[in-house]
Amino acid sequence: MKARIFITLKPGVLDPQGKAIHHALNGLGFDGVSDVRAGKVIEMDVADGTDDETLKAMCEKLLANTVIENYRIETE
Amino acid sequence: MKARIFITLKPGVLDPQGKAIHHALNGLGFDGVSDVRAGKVIEMDVADGTDDETLKAMCEKLLANTVIENYRIETE
Repeated sequence: MKARIFITLKPGVLDPQGKAIHHALNGLGFDGVSDVRAGKVIEMDVADGTDDETLKAMCEKLLANTVIENYRIETE
Repeated sequence: MKARIFITLKPGVLDPQGKAIHHALNGLGFDGVSDVRAGKVIEMDVADGTDDETLKAMCEKLLANTVIENYRIETE
């Protein structure tokens, strides 16, 4: 089973990587961009039947820093 | 308009970050995980009506290293 975890910075948390990307896009002539935020995806092959609770525990304990990051779990 | 770019390493490209996450998950007792790959998400606010060609150009020129990375564009 595939699980995908999307980790993004909470609103209000400074994002220097996003700022740098934004600046570079402007420098390349892409003017329509008004905001950029950078985050992470983690794709995992997990055992079939792994429940959402387990995936949530992985996020809370290791994958996301819940003080400054939100996460979203997607399974297929 | 929101655009989301998902950037993942191509299959076969070594992923030390994913390996480290995998190892750490095992260390925490999550045994059902057989593979982990780490990637990036870039969330952008772009001008309404920005076409897919422009977003593709951003990926090709700056956001993704197309030698080793795949990208996927999602707009809403």
